[in-house]
Amino acid sequence: MADRKLGVAVFGVGRIGKVHLESLVNRIPEAELIALADVGASELANVAARFGIGRTFADYRDALKLPEVDAVVICTPTTTHYDAIFDAASAGKQIFCEKPLELTIERIAAINAHVAKCGVQLMVGFNRRFDPSFLKMRETVQAGGIGAPEILRITSRDPAPPPEAYLRSSGGLFLDQTIHDFDMARYLVGSEVTEVYARAGRLVDPMFERVGDWDTAVVSLRFANGAMGAIDNSRRAVYGYDQRAEVFGSLGMVAIGNEVPSQHVRFDGDGGHSSPLRNFFMDRYTESYLNEMRAFIAAVRGQAAVPVNGHDGQMAVAIGLAAAISVRENRTVKIANV
Amino acid sequence: MADRKLGVAVFGVGRIGKVHLESLVNRIPEAELIALADVGASELANVAARFGIGRTFADYRDALKLPEVDAVVICTPTTTHYDAIFDAASAGKQIFCEKPLELTIERIAAINAHVAKCGVQLMVGFNRRFDPSFLKMRETVQAGGIGAPEILRITSRDPAPPPEAYLRSSGGLFLDQTIHDFDMARYLVGSEVTEVYARAGRLVDPMFERVGDWDTAVVSLRFANGAMGAIDNSRRAVYGYDQRAEVFGSLGMVAIGNEVPSQHVRFDGDGGHSSPLRNFFMDRYTESYLNEMRAFIAAVRGQAAVPVNGHDGQMAVAIGLAAAISVRENRTVKIANV
Amino acid sequence: MADRKLGVAVFGVGRIGKVHLESLVNRIPEAELIALADVGASELANVAARFGIGRTFADYRDALKLPEVDAVVICTPTTTHYDAIFDAASAGKQIFCEKPLELTIERIAAINAHVAKCGVQLMVGFNRRFDPSFLKMRETVQAGGIGAPEILRITSRDPAPPPEAYLRSSGGLFLDQTIHDFDMARYLVGSEVTEVYARAGRLVDPMFERVGDWDTAVVSLRFANGAMGAIDNSRRAVYGYDQRAEVFGSLGMVAIGNEVPSQHVRFDGDGGHSSPLRNFFMDRYTESYLNEMRAFIAAVRGQAAVPVNGHDGQMAVAIGLAAAISVRENRTVKIANV
Amino acid sequence: MADRKLGVAVFGVGRIGKVHLESLVNRIPEAELIALADVGASELANVAARFGIGRTFADYRDALKLPEVDAVVICTPTTTHYDAIFDAASAGKQIFCEKPLELTIERIAAINAHVAKCGVQLMVGFNRRFDPSFLKMRETVQAGGIGAPEILRITSRDPAPPPEAYLRSSGGLFLDQTIHDFDMARYLVGSEVTEVYARAGRLVDPMFERVGDWDTAVVSLRFANGAMGAIDNSRRAVYGYDQRAEVFGSLGMVAIGNEVPSQHVRFDGDGGHSSPLRNFFMDRYTESYLNEMRAFIAAVRGQAAVPVNGHDGQMAVAIGLAAAISVRENRTVKIANV
Repeated sequence: MADRKLGVAVFGVGRIGKVHLESLVNRIPEAELIALADVGASELANVAARFGIGRTFADYRDALKLPEVDAVVICTPTTTHYDAIFDAASAGKQIFCEKPLELTIERIAAINAHVAKCGVQLMVGFNRRFDPSFLKMRETVQAGGIGAPEILRITSRDPAPPPEAYLRSSGGLFLDQTIHDFDMARYLVGSEVTEVYARAGRLVDPMFERVGDWDTAVVSLRFANGAMGAIDNSRRAVYGYDQRAEVFGSLGMVAIGNEVPSQHVRFDGDGGHSSPLRNFFMDRYTESYLNEMRAFIAAVRGQAAVPVNGHDGQMAVAIGLAAAISVRENRTVKIANV
Repeated sequence: MADRKLGVAVFGVGRIGKVHLESLVNRIPEAELIALADVGASELANVAARFGIGRTFADYRDALKLPEVDAVVICTPTTTHYDAIFDAASAGKQIFCEKPLELTIERIAAINAHVAKCGVQLMVGFNRRFDPSFLKMRETVQAGGIGAPEILRITSRDPAPPPEAYLRSSGGLFLDQTIHDFDMARYLVGSEVTEVYARAGRLVDPMFERVGDWDTAVVSLRFANGAMGAIDNSRRAVYGYDQRAEVFGSLGMVAIGNEVPSQHVRFDGDGGHSSPLRNFFMDRYTESYLNEMRAFIAAVRGQAAVPVNGHDGQMAVAIGLAAAISVRENRTVKIANV
Repeated sequence: MADRKLGVAVFGVGRIGKVHLESLVNRIPEAELIALADVGASELANVAARFGIGRTFADYRDALKLPEVDAVVICTPTTTHYDAIFDAASAGKQIFCEKPLELTIERIAAINAHVAKCGVQLMVGFNRRFDPSFLKMRETVQAGGIGAPEILRITSRDPAPPPEAYLRSSGGLFLDQTIHDFDMARYLVGSEVTEVYARAGRLVDPMFERVGDWDTAVVSLRFANGAMGAIDNSRRAVYGYDQRAEVFGSLGMVAIGNEVPSQHVRFDGDGGHSSPLRNFFMDRYTESYLNEMRAFIAAVRGQAAVPVNGHDGQMAVAIGLAAAISVRENRTVKIANV
Repeated sequence: MADRKLGVAVFGVGRIGKVHLESLVNRIPEAELIALADVGASELANVAARFGIGRTFADYRDALKLPEVDAVVICTPTTTHYDAIFDAASAGKQIFCEKPLELTIERIAAINAHVAKCGVQLMVGFNRRFDPSFLKMRETVQAGGIGAPEILRITSRDPAPPPEAYLRSSGGLFLDQTIHDFDMARYLVGSEVTEVYARAGRLVDPMFERVGDWDTAVVSLRFANGAMGAIDNSRRAVYGYDQRAEVFGSLGMVAIGNEVPSQHVRFDGDGGHSSPLRNFFMDRYTESYLNEMRAFIAAVRGQAAVPVNGHDGQMAVAIGLAAAISVRENRTVKIANV
């Protein structure tokens, strides 16, 4: 397959769908964008025109019928993931799906079983793994650069809450926001999370109470290798998208701080004044999204294993579900019991 | 009293005793060092000679009989604090005592009651409150510079474990090391800790198992104002004494990083190479110890309230005891129940 | 013209030509790549195939005959700039040309006069003006954020020398490398350079002596507004592409440091270890090249003035020529006398 | 001599005299402060009382008669240095003298000859050599950590101009302020300065024109080893005392940035806000002054060579005089010709 382009269909042309479209159309010559599918006719037409794509479908199942579609990129709402993955796998397509895969372990397990049975691959959109700084942390830990990992710390704070409508179907703080940190925890430490204790509250906006969600959290983790971890989240950091992590070990520590859109610092009588952080994930993780899609295309073209699979998708959701139980019952929850 | 020097006796001439002696003899002209007491005759003689102090006692109670002693600075082992404070208060002396005050809430409560009855003051040695960087964080939060505090983070890691003998009488990780962080938590957030969940383990040295202690911990806190917190500790950071903290709130964040003994950075083909951190508390918190002792002397000379009192000493121990229970029973512990 | 795409021809498909091609073909939908020209047939064919461009020419003058070409982007060697600009202007095309425009003031003045006579615009490729960090410095100074500018500092060091063949036709250190800093000096301070004193030497490689060039320099500037400046250059910084600048003024200072490809810092017993710098201009200034080409396309489509013009191109060369005279004669040289 | 304290007399109890007094009385047990001398009776009495020193003299020559005075620390105005050093050397005392030694090369040469003839040592107060960060830079360069030094950069800016009266007898910008940078240049690069070109102006305050001085300068240096350097100075940096330096070489670079009194950084919607710099030399170089005096006392007690001698004092003045000529005549000046 390496000698021809990979035919791709994208399902869902919302915010993240456009990110992947931009990569596939303009930046990844090894891929060819064949078709788009979205239930919203007007936005679908706009996006198709902008990217010069001829075939569009209201029903993604029509795109699955096209033999020149080798792979699908699923960016539709979480509630549609189950059916889309099932149908795509049944049609023999390679699959990339945004996180979270689904909101229950049972349904994710069913997805993974079906995908395996169909002999296709499923890659899950944990884009941070492809960010150069997080990747370098991972490589440093894997190479023994800090010895045995003992303590993980992640700070992950959004600049502002999403709309209430989004929140209602998001799966909640732990499956929508912290899920990235749960995946990073496994990825950076290189060991499975075995136990979680979480605190959460509504400090940002009464909206979170209305939708039965939380906006602020501190999560404590236990790993299979004996390491411990702490994650903190907020839905509102007025100074921008705060994304930091560190792994501490027997021989040292590796940490990453925030990125800024401009390196400038201004000094006056009050001290130094530096740039606000990158505004949000579209700015902060631009490069990771491109690298992620390149990795997906390269893996399926080369018949190699995708670098983030359905098991990864399942584990992050399991930790998220455990965290939510922990908050509600104010107790430690073992991941194996979720 | 402001027109004459304050007469001071120091009890205990070990490591921290010498720090305070240096401040009192050489840096605080408002204090006059009257007497030293220590059970170790040889070291007592050495120290007295070095600082030019004439009166030394094997039994601190003899020093308490001197009418020119207005105040005592207690730097003896924790197990002796109770008696020393009781006797000093009974003798009408103003008291500075190193942390932890004692290892049980009952005995601390008794100390506080007795001190109040005697009409003297008791200041507890939480020196970090007097470090310029931590002080500036506190002031920033108090001045509303980050709005309502919502998340606290503290990283506090020692460069290397203390000797096993020290560990056996230290009160354990949470009363010996984390106790500073518990005090910082209350100080920085400006709200009482109400609940604690702690993880701890032995990842550094088998010695910690022998003495029934832990060497690594991640602690999750709840505050009365609704804020949450996470603290992480290790007894062995090979890169030096790691002391960082941040408070995140509705209008921003204030954070402090580590100090280094030299500002230099060297760049070569591998990247930038900066100085190791300050080695340990004697280097990192030098200025805080001097400021702390100055604050004690100034307060008692000016008949003002000391800036860290017996209640502060009791609360930090209560959180530490709760943390230890939490680890042993793998559950959340309310401070009010300790 | 704003309602249709701008037709563009690119002359020269070497390193920088490919950068602009990538922008024009994949990232700037307002432009349409019509034709390529290059004297090297084989590379021309490769590049045309890679970007899917049908019309290619060995002689750029054939591309100028195409009526659908509105603008040309000149990326050929410096010695060809004069003719290419003359011919393009005569053909009524809008022109973007890489730096340096030419190697003598006389020829640049002739270029500028001809371009004006033909009623077209000429934009010069000082890409750093479009880097977000340098742009923010400029805006800060212009907005009065540091008061009156008084001292400029620029450090600009390449990671490794170019090949000897390149050096022979480069115009020398001051017209090839420092020319960017001379343009930044005028741009950041917002005042013309009036006088230059330069030191230069051969410390890096004997090759520089063979070609009659220098590899290391320190330049001292005087500005019309009374400010002073210092620039330092090297052709070999083993730690990467070192690009820093600052402007100091009556009310403060604004500075930019280096960018790194990864934010990670690893700490061990030797201290902190951070990433090498971005390797070279293709990595460091990626965003600036895209922004620069967007600015060119937007200006000529909107019939607005281009943001960097022939006068800017001439002044930077004048300062560079003055610097070379200064080194040879070990004296101050006034720009007006070049 | 190592078995008894070194008897010291301090001449001049102004700002810097008090700094050294504090070190000698409270921090250096190997020294004993014997006598003070100052022409101002009232301040002399105050300082003597504060430090508990019995013997004070209006005329320093009376202090030189005391046999228990082994060494003198000269902190009187520059115009008095010549006589004080001559008399102290004639009396066989070891000598520490603040910078600049004197304002002409002839008088410094005479001082150095006389000191040599008398067989005593003269140490000059270039305190920055004893700052941990500058010291580490020096050590890094000396150890080959950056290969062969090629470029030196120093930024040295005072927070605010001194009083006009001080300026009138200061020797001017290059002998009063930049002299430290000239010494650092020699010290950090490890090679003599051979040639200087300087620009200077009056951008800060008309007072500098009245006293025939400058307030802003950019200096370009040539070193004997082929390296080049640039120094920039201002008498008014509103953001604090700006003290940075770097040495670039064939194998890398070593640089130091500024120190701050507090590590805190506050983030809000406008970005990060860090502490102003240390206010001035008393805050920034506190540790260096103590280390410097310790080095002096240790050297003369141990009969070892002092670490900064009269030659160093002479070279820095020579560069400063050359810089002033360079500005006045707008030309390069060789140090050998001063």
